[in-house]
Amino acid sequence: MKPWKLLDSEFLVNAPWLKVAKEKCELPNGKVIDDFYTLWQPDWVLILARTTDGKWVMTEQYRHGTGKIALEFPAGIIDKGETPEEAAIRELQEECGFGVNGDRMDPIGHASRMTTRDERRVTSNLTPPNPYDLKPITYLGSFPVNPDRHRGKFHVVFIDGVERLGKTHFDETEDIETFLYTDEEFQAKIADGTFNHPLQIAGYFKWKLTQK
Amino acid sequence: MKPWKLLDSEFLVNAPWLKVAKEKCELPNGKVIDDFYTLWQPDWVLILARTTDGKWVMTEQYRHGTGKIALEFPAGIIDKGETPEEAAIRELQEECGFGVNGDRMDPIGHASRMTTRDERRVTSNLTPPNPYDLKPITYLGSFPVNPDRHRGKFHVVFIDGVERLGKTHFDETEDIETFLYTDEEFQAKIADGTFNHPLQIAGYFKWKLTQK
Repeated sequence: MKPWKLLDSEFLVNAPWLKVAKEKCELPNGKVIDDFYTLWQPDWVLILARTTDGKWVMTEQYRHGTGKIALEFPAGIIDKGETPEEAAIRELQEECGFGVNGDRMDPIGHASRMTTRDERRVTSNLTPPNPYDLKPITYLGSFPVNPDRHRGKFHVVFIDGVERLGKTHFDETEDIETFLYTDEEFQAKIADGTFNHPLQIAGYFKWKLTQK
Repeated sequence: MKPWKLLDSEFLVNAPWLKVAKEKCELPNGKVIDDFYTLWQPDWVLILARTTDGKWVMTEQYRHGTGKIALEFPAGIIDKGETPEEAAIRELQEECGFGVNGDRMDPIGHASRMTTRDERRVTSNLTPPNPYDLKPITYLGSFPVNPDRHRGKFHVVFIDGVERLGKTHFDETEDIETFLYTDEEFQAKIADGTFNHPLQIAGYFKWKLTQK
């Protein structure tokens, strides 16, 4: 089995949040497709944030794709120069007002309580300096958004032991409410269809497989 | 929390397999977004097909979005007039050469061994006529492809007890290999990243939540 050969490509949409290309491709069997459309959106991070008492931090906001108010995990586009872990900490603070308490996160002075977009420098993936460091941030990997014709991807970050820390900072197009659910409550919401964001469910299941 | 108001809309791409619209929207706070892009692709069905000896039927094929050969569950676009269950039976036969044996599926003469695109009339969701009818097809619901800016959706169908039945019938752009994996093998492939189609993982997890 071989990949297709790209013969030509032209952008039909070339905006900051979406690019659509029309690609001319030659298949291994010699057939030529004149108009295979590919998509790109900026990479984003899915934030699986669990509170100190074991509840998932979740959001409700309007989604113009479905035209509905949706229950979701917090998530956000990764800014230029950010790691997925840094974006996760920033977005969790901005969208939900939650973060990891500095005392717990920073036994030897490494880190960081995020409060605004400007306080970005986080040393994530700290090597635990001693057995009492809980290393609250785990990078769980990335997924292609949709392998069929999409070129973007999303990353999954698990942050354990978060608390309400200061205020939210919404972008001017955002209006977000925060909720806390136990793992059992969350799974019931997938089962009954209340939670139906498939990309986020995949990220959650990847986390679940890492639990003993 | 309120939905956005659509003020204007224009198609930038209007092809059979992809539509891209530029929408002018008014937010509840009065802000107007001139260029919110929405996407549409045809609805498709994810086929969770388990063999008589308990293995998942899976495929490998080239995906031009990622540019890679990908391990996936069989899936396909739902033709006009088809139910998701009918599309699932047809695509499973065409892509993999697997189906439900007629004798088992059809204790009172209802159904149907699919062999070609033209033999489409399937009575799915049979009411079990007696306790020996195993009702092999279960509709598990649908998901939005991506709630952010996507208008399409996909359906999840579980077919239990399939067997190799006759030949595959590929479209001229298709080149597909079939593999069989136990549930444990499949989960290990999600954990190590070999299987990374997030929409399909969500469908699988929905199935998993229905199992006692």
